[in-house]
Amino acid sequence: MKKRQALTVAGTSAARVDGVEKVTGRAVYTGDLELPGMAFAKVLRSPLPHARLVKVDARRAEGLPGVLTVLTRDDIRSLNYRYGATYKDQSIVAVDKVRYVGDPVAAVLAVDEAAADEALGLIDVEYEELPPVTSIEEAIAPGAPLVHETESVKAELRGVRYGAPERFKGTNVCYYFGYGQGDVTTGFEKSDCVFEDVFRFPKVQHYSLEPHVSIAHFQGDRLTVWTSCQDPFNLRDHLAAMFKLPLSRVRVIVPYVGGGYGGKLYVKTEPIAAALSWKARRPVKLALSVEESFKTITRHPARVRIKTGVTRDGRLLARECEIYMDTGAYADAGPRVTQKAGYRALGPYRIPQVRVEAHAVYTNTVPAGAFRGFGSVQVTWAYESQMDLIAERLGIDALELRLKNLLQKGEDYTPGDTPVDCDLKEGLLKVARALDWKRKPTKPYRGKGLACCIKDAGGTFKIAGATVKMSSDGSAVLLTGTVEVGQGPRTALSQVVAEELALSLDQIAVAELDTDVTPYDVSTSASSSTTVMGLAVQRAAQDVKKQLLQAAAKVMGEKVDRLTLKAGKVHGSKGKGVPYDKIIADYFGSRAGEFIGKGLYRDKKSKRAVLGSPTTFWEVGWGGAEVEVDPETGVIRLLKYVSASDVGKAINPMQCEGQDEGGVLFGIGHTLYEEMIYQDGQLLNPNLIDYRVPTFRHLPEEFHSFLIENRNGPGPFGAKGMGEGGLLPVASAIGNAVANAVGIRFYDLPLTPPRVWRALRAKESSGT
Amino acid sequence: MKKRQALTVAGTSAARVDGVEKVTGRAVYTGDLELPGMAFAKVLRSPLPHARLVKVDARRAEGLPGVLTVLTRDDIRSLNYRYGATYKDQSIVAVDKVRYVGDPVAAVLAVDEAAADEALGLIDVEYEELPPVTSIEEAIAPGAPLVHETESVKAELRGVRYGAPERFKGTNVCYYFGYGQGDVTTGFEKSDCVFEDVFRFPKVQHYSLEPHVSIAHFQGDRLTVWTSCQDPFNLRDHLAAMFKLPLSRVRVIVPYVGGGYGGKLYVKTEPIAAALSWKARRPVKLALSVEESFKTITRHPARVRIKTGVTRDGRLLARECEIYMDTGAYADAGPRVTQKAGYRALGPYRIPQVRVEAHAVYTNTVPAGAFRGFGSVQVTWAYESQMDLIAERLGIDALELRLKNLLQKGEDYTPGDTPVDCDLKEGLLKVARALDWKRKPTKPYRGKGLACCIKDAGGTFKIAGATVKMSSDGSAVLLTGTVEVGQGPRTALSQVVAEELALSLDQIAVAELDTDVTPYDVSTSASSSTTVMGLAVQRAAQDVKKQLLQAAAKVMGEKVDRLTLKAGKVHGSKGKGVPYDKIIADYFGSRAGEFIGKGLYRDKKSKRAVLGSPTTFWEVGWGGAEVEVDPETGVIRLLKYVSASDVGKAINPMQCEGQDEGGVLFGIGHTLYEEMIYQDGQLLNPNLIDYRVPTFRHLPEEFHSFLIENRNGPGPFGAKGMGEGGLLPVASAIGNAVANAVGIRFYDLPLTPPRVWRALRAKESSGT
Repeated sequence: MKKRQALTVAGTSAARVDGVEKVTGRAVYTGDLELPGMAFAKVLRSPLPHARLVKVDARRAEGLPGVLTVLTRDDIRSLNYRYGATYKDQSIVAVDKVRYVGDPVAAVLAVDEAAADEALGLIDVEYEELPPVTSIEEAIAPGAPLVHETESVKAELRGVRYGAPERFKGTNVCYYFGYGQGDVTTGFEKSDCVFEDVFRFPKVQHYSLEPHVSIAHFQGDRLTVWTSCQDPFNLRDHLAAMFKLPLSRVRVIVPYVGGGYGGKLYVKTEPIAAALSWKARRPVKLALSVEESFKTITRHPARVRIKTGVTRDGRLLARECEIYMDTGAYADAGPRVTQKAGYRALGPYRIPQVRVEAHAVYTNTVPAGAFRGFGSVQVTWAYESQMDLIAERLGIDALELRLKNLLQKGEDYTPGDTPVDCDLKEGLLKVARALDWKRKPTKPYRGKGLACCIKDAGGTFKIAGATVKMSSDGSAVLLTGTVEVGQGPRTALSQVVAEELALSLDQIAVAELDTDVTPYDVSTSASSSTTVMGLAVQRAAQDVKKQLLQAAAKVMGEKVDRLTLKAGKVHGSKGKGVPYDKIIADYFGSRAGEFIGKGLYRDKKSKRAVLGSPTTFWEVGWGGAEVEVDPETGVIRLLKYVSASDVGKAINPMQCEGQDEGGVLFGIGHTLYEEMIYQDGQLLNPNLIDYRVPTFRHLPEEFHSFLIENRNGPGPFGAKGMGEGGLLPVASAIGNAVANAVGIRFYDLPLTPPRVWRALRAKESSGT
Repeated sequence: MKKRQALTVAGTSAARVDGVEKVTGRAVYTGDLELPGMAFAKVLRSPLPHARLVKVDARRAEGLPGVLTVLTRDDIRSLNYRYGATYKDQSIVAVDKVRYVGDPVAAVLAVDEAAADEALGLIDVEYEELPPVTSIEEAIAPGAPLVHETESVKAELRGVRYGAPERFKGTNVCYYFGYGQGDVTTGFEKSDCVFEDVFRFPKVQHYSLEPHVSIAHFQGDRLTVWTSCQDPFNLRDHLAAMFKLPLSRVRVIVPYVGGGYGGKLYVKTEPIAAALSWKARRPVKLALSVEESFKTITRHPARVRIKTGVTRDGRLLARECEIYMDTGAYADAGPRVTQKAGYRALGPYRIPQVRVEAHAVYTNTVPAGAFRGFGSVQVTWAYESQMDLIAERLGIDALELRLKNLLQKGEDYTPGDTPVDCDLKEGLLKVARALDWKRKPTKPYRGKGLACCIKDAGGTFKIAGATVKMSSDGSAVLLTGTVEVGQGPRTALSQVVAEELALSLDQIAVAELDTDVTPYDVSTSASSSTTVMGLAVQRAAQDVKKQLLQAAAKVMGEKVDRLTLKAGKVHGSKGKGVPYDKIIADYFGSRAGEFIGKGLYRDKKSKRAVLGSPTTFWEVGWGGAEVEVDPETGVIRLLKYVSASDVGKAINPMQCEGQDEGGVLFGIGHTLYEEMIYQDGQLLNPNLIDYRVPTFRHLPEEFHSFLIENRNGPGPFGAKGMGEGGLLPVASAIGNAVANAVGIRFYDLPLTPPRVWRALRAKESSGT
């Protein structure tokens, strides 16, 4: 294939193909669907953080008019009712114990939501209360009550081995990841200074605009599920196992999804909806409230102890990092998140001697799973805050310290993994320049901060397939398993197809995502769709192109390699080009037929790679903040925020900027506002009044998002993944700016006015 | 590919995969669907057979509460509002004239059907009556009123040319097909006897249990249509042209269809539903009543003059056949049906000199289009009735006469077409034996009759694609454009996949038919799906098999050609075989991924073939009847009916028998009961009370259906098409048996008791 000279559709900020549909309210989400005979489900949830389930009696509820059936533990025993993203520790409804406030105990199906709601109160449940653990500290304390009475702990030891994960048997630690590189003890001995700090990250929620919702319909031995999810194939596999069906008998359809951020990965509301439909043989809709989504999945609170040894002139020599991730009552993706937190704790720096230990810990709180940043957010907060502490303590400029230690392009992150695929200094310098780093703030209580981070792409081994179907008029339909969660793949992937086939965007349509007919895709996650699915889509389009050119060669009587595509026509060595529809009609002998192209991408495996598979690409985020702290109120004013991301090649620059800005805003929420607050095992703020997410008025007063395009990505036209990078540095960039402004270092998030005000008061009264 | 030794799933009478769903009422048909915001359409139809449209004023109707909009000719001018299967002579609603009683004049969209119905009465329409033509005779009379004021007539002259189709310019003849072979004048001169007879076939309706129904939803520049149709891709193409959209922006989904028989081919209710949705931007359901379906599409009434020259000992020497097909007010598929009637008028016999002229004629009656048998039914009634007349007149046994003239296997039907692909004598002798042909009836008023016919496969150049998607557990989903109209392709095609992939039927699912994702298929018609789509499906399954074997070779470390599939496992040179799921997981390195296989079939083109493309296969029908005529009432009692069909290889014998029996029952309806009766241009019996279709009590008292399996078909495992063959001989077999019983030859159908009784009286009174 010859190198394309210039891009015409890819690389442009084309308007979103789903834009009009969405802003006019016509776009169909799962909640918009109605099926004939559809009934409505409500879930009875545990009011206690930890209790043995003595009795669940649904007879009174079932007698209520309008109630069709009630699902309890008695119904599910013939199913493979246990499930989970990594461990099968969760069940459709609670069987033996409840493990957090909100744990599903039973579910009612009724002709309307009101009847279902009313029936919840008629289910007789008897609990035997057990002592709960609701924090990492409580959970890992010796003799702590056990959330799960399991005897084993899964451990992954990589690199230089040490430690004895067996010690966690019979504790609340459900997963352990250890990684060693070099001899960390010697590393610290050789260091001029060793710094040790402990950072904490709170429990936060995804808060998608659309809470979890699904519709399940069992017909005979065939289950169809419409759901708001990010990984329909994975969900299909889980449901098939649960209901003991071949994969071909489970069909998952994904309408538009109103935000995911990882919260709609793996199995969520679907088993309850499906089990009710299995029992009642009717279509079942289960739509969670915002409060219930808060009680379904969250981000892992973390405690990160980080110890770093440096030379006097600021070279990093050794790092020890001990991470505890609170995965809540069920593991969900917690072990994978924990593994990634551990692996990503090295940061973008050259550190010869490393020891990382990461633990996932059960507590009696809402389960924590995948969430934009996937383990990186917590460790970046720690290591990038500490970088400033080190700079400050050594009296080196924070930018200089980073530049001195950043990995170079082509250098190993760890042996066997993909070498660093971009110039880490480039983005950092870009951010520093935009922040006018060298210039001191002109007013008091103002300060600047920088942060820089790197993450490998994603938590799963990636396989993505795509199909492109060119109809007899030359227009094309794309079948892709990437979910349109709002992040824009319908547009970007359509641009890839349009580019390869020299079509305009309005000739491309994206088919409804339906596991029956859409090629397999692992999941929409890890900033990887444009790269991973992008390659599959590009290959599918190229396959169509090949068929089209071969047909054209026949029809036009020219050699394939003399033909090119341009604006819907095949151009040969002479003439004005032949439109695709004419080629196809002549080739098939009728205005009929089509070309179907297939494309596949899969990650490589490598025994040398620490995690078994070298990363598809490195996602890099650079951020810089300038803040002003109000000494009277503790309010942090975000004067300026600068973000840079390495996108390789932006398929749609405007969408990339939107993703980056959205990521930053997420980070602002985590840094300044968000925290799920527990008291006596009860979540106090599961709603938008008490749990605050940032809105437009919380945008930085000046906001820059830079896309760095060097075509250094493995994706189509040199694209790389992006969308998480913007989020990762925010907390430490702001934390560093606050420290720079008022001389106070915060170790815990969020930096709410009360917390900042108290710290200012404490500093004043201590006279420092 | 090695020859498979024995079939395990294909060739068995497996239970229908959709059987339970259908008998329990869970199967979803278009009428079962509900969409949020869906509104309901009703059609205002012309009360006059022929009139100029002076005024259509919908203002009063639009003012009625509940009415959302009214579609009139004023709305559609910006669209390509003219459409038609062959000519664009029909419009979404009438523009200049109405041409039959029932012609759509306007359509109302309302929040419910009652409001829509009421509003129909408030549309002010002013007509200027025109004289109608309602029969072939009226239509072809000199100076007849013109249904369409067009100046041209499409003519196809094939073989030896003669005639001057230009003479039909400016008449109601809209299509002319002429075919000549040898010199028919000399043929008649050389003949010892020349027989000339005129036969008539009445207007009948498909009477699908499910009347026409569709739902259309315009969203932005994207149209989705759910409809009960047999050719979704063709429909998509028409709708895209009508609304000026790329094919990728029109999506047609076909739920289960409750019977089609050709009546749901091409464009029917969909343009009105789509235009209303285009105007109102809401989902629109248009469900016709039984009476409205009667006013939508029918079979062509025909007049067939057939002149045959024979030698004294019964060899056919020459045939001249003049066919008039009444295509009603719009051409629909009429020209194609007429072409086929002409081409098929030669029958299964060797006739050296032939001249055929077939005409499609417009009349002011309901349009006639595709209908099971597609032009064959009318001409078979003529030529097989005449064969008995010839036998009688020459004093030769009717079976002997046929055997003497039947084409042999391998002989040309016409030069350039596929040679006859089966032994025509085999089936005829089978039927004769089952009828105990040589034995004279033991009682008076009893008689036996035989008939035999042959038809080429279908009216369109056939292209069919299919995809098979094998998931990581080894189960498979089939994507096929063949519509499940009740004829069983879901089961038969699943059997083909199961056979090729050594799976059980419950591991195969058939995906919803959706033009966005399903590979292209021309149409579900012409008894061709098992052969044509069957081959595409088989090739798709073989493509999966190839990929699976290559993966297995890698995983198992064996050579591909040493591997075989058996019961869900890959067997190599040793060991017990490896299950597919293990092969796939090992190959992809994860319980993920899948194999997607593609298959394509397309007909050959040939300039030598009379119709441009040699037939895919020959469909043959043999039938024999024994009847008793009640001299007092004229009632024909069907004592016995024997049918034989050449199926090549029955993929599902029970389904084939069901198709054959269903075909025969259709034929019984046409022969004994069915006729649409017109008076003053008004259809008098558009309902099941006055229009009688046969029911279970009209089954023959003894009924045999023989499948002849010689694996001589081009389809999977040697299959051929079937399903129409059973129908074709019925009328003449019964007509011949009646003639044999009471010595009266009927030239017109149906053979109702009054008609038979009157003929018996006439014969009595004439004393013959």
